[in-house]
Parts: sequence; C-alpha cells; structure tokens
Amino acid sequence: MLVDPIGIVHSSFKTRGDIRRERSSAAKNKEEFKGELEIFQEFEPGLKDINGFSHLIVIFSFHKSEQRKLYAHPPHDGKKRGVFATRSPDRPNPIGMTIVKLLKREGNILKVSGIDMIEGTPILDIKPYTRSDIKNNASFGWLPQKKDSD
Amino acid sequence: MLVDPIGIVHSSFKTRGDIRRERSSAAKNKEEFKGELEIFQEFEPGLKDINGFSHLIVIFSFHKSEQRKLYAHPPHDGKKRGVFATRSPDRPNPIGMTIVKLLKREGNILKVSGIDMIEGTPILDIKPYTRSDIKNNASFGWLPQKKDSD
Repeated sequence: MLVDPIGIVHSSFKTRGDIRRERSSAAKNKEEFKGELEIFQEFEPGLKDINGFSHLIVIFSFHKSEQRKLYAHPPHDGKKRGVFATRSPDRPNPIGMTIVKLLKREGNILKVSGIDMIEGTPILDIKPYTRSDIKNNASFGWLPQKKDSD
Repeated sequence: MLVDPIGIVHSSFKTRGDIRRERSSAAKNKEEFKGELEIFQEFEPGLKDINGFSHLIVIFSFHKSEQRKLYAHPPHDGKKRGVFATRSPDRPNPIGMTIVKLLKREGNILKVSGIDMIEGTPILDIKPYTRSDIKNNASFGWLPQKKDSD
C-alpha cells in the first residue's frame, strides 16, 4: 500500500533528541507544545466541519526513522520491550499517531497543541477524536503508574 | 511511503454494509463485537509486553475503499462533511484507526473486542493505548451530543 502526505507538521522540535529532552524536562508539560499542521491546499476542502472538535487524531510518517525493529528500549525504562507495546518510531511500519488539541483553523493551517512530531513530519491523515476513543477504564501495562510515557 | 501489512483482522463483518447494519441496531453495543488480530509470525516478537495493556490502537488499511473523497455523508447525519471531520473509509489515504480492548493473547493471535473492521483487513500497526490518549475534556463538533457516531 502506497501512501502520500496530505500535509506537513511545523514544530519547534528539529530532531528526535529535542523531543526526548523536552519530555524529560520536569518543567514542561507535553500538552503545552504548540505547532501547526499545514494541510496541502488540494486537500483543504476536507477540513470542512473540523471546527468544534477540540481534539484531532494525527496519523503521520516517522520519516526520520531508518530502523525497522521488533524491540524498543523506551527512555526512562531501560528494558527491552516488544515494539508493539511501545510508541517507538523504529517499528515495522513507521507510522505515528498523536492526539492534538485544535486551537484554531486558519484556512489550510491547523494551529494545535500537544504535538510530539519534528519539523517537516509528513501528515498522512487527520481524524476527529470521538467519544469512543475515550477509554477511562484502561490499564497501561509496563508504563509507570502515575506518569504517562512511551 | 510504502507500507506492508504486519497482520490481518478476523471479523464476523464480511462487508462495510454489515458494519453499518450492526451499528444502526439499537440492541447491540459496538464494544461487544469480538474478533481476532492475527499478527504474522515474523512480527510476533514485537508483541512482547503487550499483556497488561487493556486497550490497543490498531492502524489498518481500508482495503475495500476505492474512492479518495474530500467529503463524506456520514450515516444518520445526511449532511456533507469534510472527510477529515469524519472517520469515513473513503479518504485521501485509506488508513483506519480503531481502539480495541485486548481480551487475551494466544501467541501471535490477539483476541479483542470493539472491532469495526471487516474480515481480511490488513493491519499496519499496533500501539499501546496510553494515558495521554484519554481526553476527558474533549468536544465533538457536528457529532450528536449523546450518542457516539462517525
């Protein structure tokens, strides 16, 4: 299956290292990181009705990932985990998924917060976050009890 | 970007029509629909540590979708919506995302509930559902106030 970008992420993170550093900074909350989703103009009509959704699911390409691994060593964990039990970029299909908060739409630009993608990340799809995506009874395997991580 | 399946969905839904019929049936709850995610054996090591996660994010191909549309007419709505404000299969990149409940792992088979994919759907990725995927303060645009829909 061949997929082509519908847009591109604009982010203050220039490298994967930037994201790791920011995440390990106790002073910052991941949800604060703002950026823009630039949807290519040919796809802009598809953004109709997106206002009113507070959160969007962004499907993107881990375009800087060059390794297709079956295990990952998540930061702050140090153990070898199955890659499908992590959100590591180095996975069989380098597809990422992050839920962002929609702050404002300006034409083909979506201003958002909560991004963890680097500048230039190719966007493959945008979907609305809906009630059925909220799983309040969920449990989180090997992840630390209180703090979210991946 | 080229993506290859890591597995295949086994479902009692044989067609998209089956899913629409079941969803419109007031007697059934979407979360009840059980099925299996068969992960191809070469990728089975990547399932290590997946037990303990109650919910998994499944990224898949809408392999029966043949139309690349910018608008959708969601069932029970009747209005023309921007495709990125819907979960319609007929979108620029026919990639789907559903959060399922993990019931049991048996080797390379994940028994799950909450599926809305048809039999034979190619699986592109499995990710753990984590705390940061829960957005309790979310709002849902054009969707009906009480009932989830897409």
